[in-house]
Amino acid sequence: MSEIARSPSPNVLNALRAVTGPKGVFEGDAAAPFLSERRGRWAGEAGLILAPATTEEVAKIVALCAEARVAITPQGGNTGLVGGQMPIGGEILLSLKRMARIREIDPLNNTMTVDAGVVLAAAQDAARDAGRFFPLSIGSEGTCQIGGVLSTNAGGVNVLRYGSARQQVLGLEAVLPNGSVWNGLRKLRKDNTGYDLKQLLVGAEGTLGIITGAVLKLYPSTVQTTTAFVGVPSADAAVELLSYAQGETGGAASSFELISRQSLDLVVQYIPGARDPLRASHPWYVLAEFSSGAGGALREQTEDMLAGAMEKGMVVDAAIAENEKQAGDFWRMRHSISEAINHVGLGARHDVSVATSAIPAFLERADAAVRELAPGARIVAFGHVGDGNVHYDIAPAEGAAKNALDNLRDDIERAVYDVIAEFSGSISAEHGVGQHKRSAIAAQKSDTEMTAMRAIKSALDPLGIMNPGKVL
Amino acid sequence: MSEIARSPSPNVLNALRAVTGPKGVFEGDAAAPFLSERRGRWAGEAGLILAPATTEEVAKIVALCAEARVAITPQGGNTGLVGGQMPIGGEILLSLKRMARIREIDPLNNTMTVDAGVVLAAAQDAARDAGRFFPLSIGSEGTCQIGGVLSTNAGGVNVLRYGSARQQVLGLEAVLPNGSVWNGLRKLRKDNTGYDLKQLLVGAEGTLGIITGAVLKLYPSTVQTTTAFVGVPSADAAVELLSYAQGETGGAASSFELISRQSLDLVVQYIPGARDPLRASHPWYVLAEFSSGAGGALREQTEDMLAGAMEKGMVVDAAIAENEKQAGDFWRMRHSISEAINHVGLGARHDVSVATSAIPAFLERADAAVRELAPGARIVAFGHVGDGNVHYDIAPAEGAAKNALDNLRDDIERAVYDVIAEFSGSISAEHGVGQHKRSAIAAQKSDTEMTAMRAIKSALDPLGIMNPGKVL
Repeated sequence: MSEIARSPSPNVLNALRAVTGPKGVFEGDAAAPFLSERRGRWAGEAGLILAPATTEEVAKIVALCAEARVAITPQGGNTGLVGGQMPIGGEILLSLKRMARIREIDPLNNTMTVDAGVVLAAAQDAARDAGRFFPLSIGSEGTCQIGGVLSTNAGGVNVLRYGSARQQVLGLEAVLPNGSVWNGLRKLRKDNTGYDLKQLLVGAEGTLGIITGAVLKLYPSTVQTTTAFVGVPSADAAVELLSYAQGETGGAASSFELISRQSLDLVVQYIPGARDPLRASHPWYVLAEFSSGAGGALREQTEDMLAGAMEKGMVVDAAIAENEKQAGDFWRMRHSISEAINHVGLGARHDVSVATSAIPAFLERADAAVRELAPGARIVAFGHVGDGNVHYDIAPAEGAAKNALDNLRDDIERAVYDVIAEFSGSISAEHGVGQHKRSAIAAQKSDTEMTAMRAIKSALDPLGIMNPGKVL
Repeated sequence: MSEIARSPSPNVLNALRAVTGPKGVFEGDAAAPFLSERRGRWAGEAGLILAPATTEEVAKIVALCAEARVAITPQGGNTGLVGGQMPIGGEILLSLKRMARIREIDPLNNTMTVDAGVVLAAAQDAARDAGRFFPLSIGSEGTCQIGGVLSTNAGGVNVLRYGSARQQVLGLEAVLPNGSVWNGLRKLRKDNTGYDLKQLLVGAEGTLGIITGAVLKLYPSTVQTTTAFVGVPSADAAVELLSYAQGETGGAASSFELISRQSLDLVVQYIPGARDPLRASHPWYVLAEFSSGAGGALREQTEDMLAGAMEKGMVVDAAIAENEKQAGDFWRMRHSISEAINHVGLGARHDVSVATSAIPAFLERADAAVRELAPGARIVAFGHVGDGNVHYDIAPAEGAAKNALDNLRDDIERAVYDVIAEFSGSISAEHGVGQHKRSAIAAQKSDTEMTAMRAIKSALDPLGIMNPGKVL
């Protein structure tokens, strides 16, 4: 950021304010919500907060910033967990919140064209209203925005069946770092006419440009769902069960969540109304959802599959939800794990991935590494089996203070990342790099890969004004 | 290519030959198969033809070429239709044919790791032998190689359900233009640790590096298939039928091919043994395949769906294949269209895409444009409805000479591409750019997009040695 102005001149600030007019300028008290986030982990410092109303306004702002060598941090719903959306030292914070139009739904093409500032839940609703299904679903869906979801390649609970955000994009509109608008809003499922710029912007966390609009894929509506809470004897069994279940149901699993007994214990203990869905205790659980867009005996198929898996020793006990309420209760167990951990203190948190087949071996090695550093610590492992994505959280030992592991956090993180490296895994499966994992990424990736990433960054953003201090 | 040596010095050639040894050098008669292709449209001129046996040998060759400023054209199975695999003026032709190992199959992770030179059909077979399904399927699958398939982001008949080559890749190994090996052979379904280099190499047609290995996704095996040959009253009806069929079957369609009556006429007339599957004649046909990986009443579901569609006027008549042989006969009709056209002469050929919903309007506008230029010409339209991908071929009028349209080819092409531009479509849906569409792409894409593509090319290949004269 050496050449980048941290404090834009008053002239530049006035020119930027004039682009959006007062409606798009957030100062004083109105600035606060943009500069802090829910968990209080990341705070920001902005030179100016602007929320443009159109792509043209975004382009004007970027062009002015490029001319004046002023850095910009784009921000969506401000739900990012790694600080990617936070200006670090006086950048212009560019919020997409005022660009929240569903531009078009084309049911026969199974696409939806939206502004970047559309909230994820609103996109889901719009798809539903058009008789279609938009599968991206993550915890923050009531707040996060499509632009942020794409810039961070968000994952969530339906990746197993539908893929992550990257797979949902057919076209993009973006303002590139020189202020030019790239209209790549194609509604095409096939287009082999050169480099796939959209896949470069997806997951780039705003360092290569600002996504202003997107064409998203839609799918046939789901008409029936079966949800099962399954006790399994080991993580190995959970992995085998997924393979068996997909074979028996023809790939009908849309979610397949791994939950350790420790995770469930915390939920039952700290979340009001939470009850263990199964009578006996099991070392591991799977929360599985099977869905179908057609009629047919999905529940019977699921029951048969579970009975077969029991005979094979992959399953010890299982409960199938009798109704939507019960399915919701099962899901609440899964979604309450992070909240439950907060009651006892989050010592260290890891969002990692390995090959699905390597999950059991990863858990064994990581557990050993953590126990060596923090003998009594509670290991709270849960995640998405089919994606090889484990949320591997460490809480203080029973009875210890909430902050008992704070001094060990960096050591634990390093130890877990070392194990991930052994398995050629990822140290950020879905949360991204942001500020948080910037140095860890640089340490783990090869020179070849880092050099290629830096070359691309310099090629598209030679002035380095787009979200400096993030990713690279 | 100004700084690139067209004729490498004898010293450089000797050093290159030494990398592979005689087994990997193809000269004299052995060179011919690399420098011409089946249809005789593209011929090449190579300074030397090398087929390295390992990634390390590829890296050595690229490093030597970078040092000596010698250009390289990578070649897979030599089945490309746009000349991307052909050296233009003395480049080193680097064939991947000797790198044909299936490196690993991991059924529990649903992945397969392969050398770039593995033939597509061999990859399909290996997946089947492991109880899994690899869905990429294209006409040239008996010859084309995984590296070429990925470099051109090949499509084919299963894109509707599984996506194109781009969607099948979890990891890549590639030699970058500076000779360094990028080991991105990750077996991960989620990895948000920076720019997605693999998606940049996929579809880059060898202009950004040489793919040497890949981790490919596998799927549960398909256990039942229903194939229907359906007469529909219009292209509009075909598009509506897809939407209706996907809703009724829960997205069970794996292929949904559009065939015009003109296409069928040519097949019936020129392909020995071909018979019209339906009694009466219809303006359009759909060849639809529904598949499932589980038990259940797929055929009954298909019959019910077709009966419902008939009541709604989307379908006039339909035949469901009684057995695999009949399904094979239906598919042969579809796959013989190109061969049938060759009997009367291929005046012009277009591999274009638009939004699925826009197919009927595109056909109407394109037909009008072609008829204005070539009043009696036969318009042979077929393609993949769900992908919006139309193969729009023009043959001379009945009774005219095979070459009757040769003088009009460029005019027809330009007229069709102009219509595609009106619909924000793609002038190369699946065949790529290569040499053939290089100037057409430059004319149709915005300056913003071309500038970004060129910046990326310069960033990763500053010497311009990777497959010059292709794509950009």
